[in-house]
Amino acid sequence: MDITIEQAELISSAARKKAQEIGVPMNIAIVDAGANLKAFHRMDNAWLGSIDIAIRKAKTARLFDMESGDLGKLSQPEEPLYGIEVTNGGLVSFPGGIPLKNTAGEIVGAIGVSGGTVQQDREVALTGAGAFV
Amino acid sequence: MDITIEQAELISSAARKKAQEIGVPMNIAIVDAGANLKAFHRMDNAWLGSIDIAIRKAKTARLFDMESGDLGKLSQPEEPLYGIEVTNGGLVSFPGGIPLKNTAGEIVGAIGVSGGTVQQDREVALTGAGAFV
Amino acid sequence: MDITIEQAELISSAARKKAQEIGVPMNIAIVDAGANLKAFHRMDNAWLGSIDIAIRKAKTARLFDMESGDLGKLSQPEEPLYGIEVTNGGLVSFPGGIPLKNTAGEIVGAIGVSGGTVQQDREVALTGAGAFV
Amino acid sequence: MDITIEQAELISSAARKKAQEIGVPMNIAIVDAGANLKAFHRMDNAWLGSIDIAIRKAKTARLFDMESGDLGKLSQPEEPLYGIEVTNGGLVSFPGGIPLKNTAGEIVGAIGVSGGTVQQDREVALTGAGAFV
Repeated sequence: MDITIEQAELISSAARKKAQEIGVPMNIAIVDAGANLKAFHRMDNAWLGSIDIAIRKAKTARLFDMESGDLGKLSQPEEPLYGIEVTNGGLVSFPGGIPLKNTAGEIVGAIGVSGGTVQQDREVALTGAGAFV
Repeated sequence: MDITIEQAELISSAARKKAQEIGVPMNIAIVDAGANLKAFHRMDNAWLGSIDIAIRKAKTARLFDMESGDLGKLSQPEEPLYGIEVTNGGLVSFPGGIPLKNTAGEIVGAIGVSGGTVQQDREVALTGAGAFV
Repeated sequence: MDITIEQAELISSAARKKAQEIGVPMNIAIVDAGANLKAFHRMDNAWLGSIDIAIRKAKTARLFDMESGDLGKLSQPEEPLYGIEVTNGGLVSFPGGIPLKNTAGEIVGAIGVSGGTVQQDREVALTGAGAFV
Repeated sequence: MDITIEQAELISSAARKKAQEIGVPMNIAIVDAGANLKAFHRMDNAWLGSIDIAIRKAKTARLFDMESGDLGKLSQPEEPLYGIEVTNGGLVSFPGGIPLKNTAGEIVGAIGVSGGTVQQDREVALTGAGAFV
């Protein structure tokens, strides 16, 4: 099972609608079960630097099947995964990357959002993930 | 002037519709005036290797304000730009990347398509570019 | 709107004059609205290692529309953006990168300065940015 | 002996004046004796993809102390240096990169120009190199 482009579009649309509601232009990336890019949208006036971060958040979430922010708790100085960011061509270990689960509970991809505070990014990503049915 | 996400969506939709008509799943990337990624869609079953190619085709078309295939004519052995592919972090010099012009004739971005033969890729890219109004 | 080469020259000249006043040879980079390099000058005897840093500071400031040093406050261990430096091909998150705003208040590029202490770098960058009219 | 920033400015100005005369916006890079970037200018409306190429042409010319186009003659299929472009992080082996010699005949840097045809690029680079006194 893998995510379809229709599903990716629904997820991304829900995320963008949320971003508009909170008034923060976002970059939104969705990767598939293989952690390969499936869809990407940069809202007008979203940070250019967040293109790369949104994609890496989504990849990070699928590469380790956990929220990117949860990886971040393990990658601080003195923590078990300190320095993991430099692997895999560059990971992002702060919030905004969320695994996507289908109704059977299988992880079939991930969403990554970047453009606001990490709390805003995560909120928008959760809204997108919640639209996955 | 820069391309908007709404315009990018229209262009991408037109391209995907064309890809469905010819029965070839495609990767479709759109970059803005600064050659930064604006939108990306991978149709179901499109080649994974074409994700990177679609994005690079779009970038190549905007970086040199010409079709990626036109650059390819100049980059053959013994031709003036032989070897140009290794610059800019990797260019793609075969067809499928097309500059996007607004109604004022300004180039404000580019579309890159990859997933079929280069003729099919170019046809789909032209259809997308033609939807830009 | 984008920065012109004439504006970039004025900004760079003002920055270099300031660098001479404080007696520290600097590398000075200016990027445009798309975060692409517009102008670069390395003063005689400026650190070779600062070529790359000056360019990355300018890019960082435009990629996130904030001073590079402000990003640095957020990227310390335990802070929200810890590890962000590995994204976008390598960011610089200490002072010396400043967004460039035109008279309409639009950010149309950024200046990055490297060669002295970060305080000196920032002082020179601010002088350059202040010459933008 | 190394090139100074004043000399680099003179060389770049002469090149840009020539580019204006022939009506082609150019990217102009100058590297020093160590092949490190000394000065760079992108004229308004010059190709974004030529930023990287101008810098690489200058580096290539200094790395091998010959015109970039002369290296290109040796890097064609069946020729002795076939494939050399992928070394040194990416070389450019078509015309537009010229070593800079001081009055003593020492090579102290190089100029790289990109933005037009390779003939135009070389013409502008030669004009710049000719201004080195």
